[in-house]
Amino acid sequence: MEKRIGIIGAGVAGLHLGLYLRQHGMDATIIVDRTADGIARARLPNTAAHFAVTLERERLLGVDHWPNPDLHYTCHHHSLPCQKLAFRGDLRRPSRAVDHRIYVPLLMEDFAARGGKIEVENMGVQDLARLTQRFDLVVVASGRGALAEAFAPVAAWSPHQRPQRQLLAGLFTGVRRTDPVGTTLSLSPGHGELLEMPILTFGGMASALLFETVRGGDLEALAHLRYEESPAQFIATVLEKLARHYPQVYHRIDPSSFDLCAANDVLQGGVTPVVRRGALDLGEGKFAIAAGDAHCTVDPLLGQGANVASHSAIVVGEEIVEDVAFDARFCERIERRRRERVLGASRWTNLMLQKPPPELTDLILEMSRNQPLCDEFTNNFNYPERQWDRLASPQRMRAWLDEQGAQAAGAAA
Amino acid sequence: MEKRIGIIGAGVAGLHLGLYLRQHGMDATIIVDRTADGIARARLPNTAAHFAVTLERERLLGVDHWPNPDLHYTCHHHSLPCQKLAFRGDLRRPSRAVDHRIYVPLLMEDFAARGGKIEVENMGVQDLARLTQRFDLVVVASGRGALAEAFAPVAAWSPHQRPQRQLLAGLFTGVRRTDPVGTTLSLSPGHGELLEMPILTFGGMASALLFETVRGGDLEALAHLRYEESPAQFIATVLEKLARHYPQVYHRIDPSSFDLCAANDVLQGGVTPVVRRGALDLGEGKFAIAAGDAHCTVDPLLGQGANVASHSAIVVGEEIVEDVAFDARFCERIERRRRERVLGASRWTNLMLQKPPPELTDLILEMSRNQPLCDEFTNNFNYPERQWDRLASPQRMRAWLDEQGAQAAGAAA
Repeated sequence: MEKRIGIIGAGVAGLHLGLYLRQHGMDATIIVDRTADGIARARLPNTAAHFAVTLERERLLGVDHWPNPDLHYTCHHHSLPCQKLAFRGDLRRPSRAVDHRIYVPLLMEDFAARGGKIEVENMGVQDLARLTQRFDLVVVASGRGALAEAFAPVAAWSPHQRPQRQLLAGLFTGVRRTDPVGTTLSLSPGHGELLEMPILTFGGMASALLFETVRGGDLEALAHLRYEESPAQFIATVLEKLARHYPQVYHRIDPSSFDLCAANDVLQGGVTPVVRRGALDLGEGKFAIAAGDAHCTVDPLLGQGANVASHSAIVVGEEIVEDVAFDARFCERIERRRRERVLGASRWTNLMLQKPPPELTDLILEMSRNQPLCDEFTNNFNYPERQWDRLASPQRMRAWLDEQGAQAAGAAA
Repeated sequence: MEKRIGIIGAGVAGLHLGLYLRQHGMDATIIVDRTADGIARARLPNTAAHFAVTLERERLLGVDHWPNPDLHYTCHHHSLPCQKLAFRGDLRRPSRAVDHRIYVPLLMEDFAARGGKIEVENMGVQDLARLTQRFDLVVVASGRGALAEAFAPVAAWSPHQRPQRQLLAGLFTGVRRTDPVGTTLSLSPGHGELLEMPILTFGGMASALLFETVRGGDLEALAHLRYEESPAQFIATVLEKLARHYPQVYHRIDPSSFDLCAANDVLQGGVTPVVRRGALDLGEGKFAIAAGDAHCTVDPLLGQGANVASHSAIVVGEEIVEDVAFDARFCERIERRRRERVLGASRWTNLMLQKPPPELTDLILEMSRNQPLCDEFTNNFNYPERQWDRLASPQRMRAWLDEQGAQAAGAAA
């Protein structure tokens, strides 16, 4: 059986899939809408953490270019300033963030050096018919543009029709790292959330700040401030909001050196979460597979996007290598293998953006005094399906609390 | 969390689930519409083979009452008399059939002896509300009656609205066993199929004959013959049809001793295959789970019913024991774990009852001269999801043939 694979998109999903296929000697072509240089020079595309499960895949793919422990972080600091709560969850294995404008061009280079073909062209739905002539299987691994929309949203898993948060993400200088080095997750109920993360940028280590702002809340203005109109006012406003809502982060900032790393190191907008059908019947026995953001788009709050994309890419890659037909059963096998993780990420992220049920509030309070609970929650960033087993209903959250209570009582006895 | 489990039905699904729960010290009640005596005295309920995967579960449950190898069989004999083809597939581990009127009462006794509660009462949909008061979870494990119909059929997996075959199943004396002892699967294209199987009956080992008859074919009359109206005519007709359509079986029959083992050792009718939703939301946070025939009913041709029921029972049992809530996520986890096997059995059975695509005919021909292929097909009776990976599309069947061809060439080289 011929297996010529066409991959649309050079994000984590497209690259990990392409590299996996080349590692197994298969014909793989990545079609991307910009050159590697264009990607490197573009505006900040995201602030993506790669959790340990993803770093492990990068090692297996031979593209772990950043093994230096100084580039990693080992914990999540949680803070709820309004309740004067601050606590830490430790990761069993570290995480790492690298600006994707560094990461993607380098992995494109790896892919090409290993015999992968890269073509620069903007693809639309009208191109699918032509692509099915060239390839035995087309994988759409780009969430941007109309190609992703060819995969219908699954209504049961796509409860929102608009973004749940307006976002400001930027790479900043002047933020002192936490000790131990970690990502901070801070909540300002009614206004939003802040994710602060050490990240490798073109200029070395810096801080990614991701402000998730609630419509009508005090932080919403951040999503609409324009740095290029007045850098000074932009920075002053960000500092003012940090001081008011996220003092634990503000206290680590040196105002005199606090600024964007560069003028285009900022991204604003919003993400409508969606889970799409994973496969598209193109007729004549051919199918297209969706991966990454084309399959499932999540709000960036929990940093699940890149990790789910990488998981999905390897599942798709393994099935391509192992299976004997690219038929409906092939699509079904892929869907079955990746669904738990994809849905876990999507549902968990959606849950955290809603008004928390009382059991979730209790869990957060309990985490502040219960290290094993907090550590499990933190390590589950690698395994969103396990987190969902814990959080899928008030009964489950209550059971988690009870289990921890029982263990604490046992340890005390 | 309290886990009082109510199980409706004492077939393989209900009994294996109940026994599994008792093995794990859990509160389990089986509600059945007849006493064990009533079941033992009833008309033949089915002719169910238990494949090795099911026998293994019976060993683990401590209810393998028939370990004697003489009661087992070790191969499937296939015959296509019209093409003068006869060939054998060997089972890696033996299968066994015991009349369920022996099997079920004995396992009910085991269940009761191990602390399981048995209640004799006929349950309907109107009883569900009352049952949810008594039990934390209700499992409907009986395909008979309106309770199963409370679980909606899944249209995509339930393509047929009526039986694909009219059936005559009976336990017979006077059929000499094959050598080696095996089940025979015979095809009479356009007329039907015959499954002949060694089975332990009240009178010792005998032969189950299951005639699957095509509407309008020469065998259809068998489904409507009434033994009680004229035993002699019944037997004469069965013999005549065997001689014409299934000579390989007919030649092993001693007409002078050929008869039903007993007057009620016969079952006629037809099965409309259906896959139902596996869970039912009963409101107030309670759910009912469907298992066995309530979940998935298959035509008996491939003997998948009992085996899928047993698999499903253990999946449900494990999730009951391990999980912390009987919520929608619990139902989803069960569905995920058992779906592949259940759907594999259902789809494969449905496929074998259709006019075969040319690739399937080629596969059957190839099996007659290719032992590894035939053995894999035969052993896959234990793993219908693997069989479906082989048979789900013409491309897959062709790939299986190609793979076998390649291996044969390799072996010859």
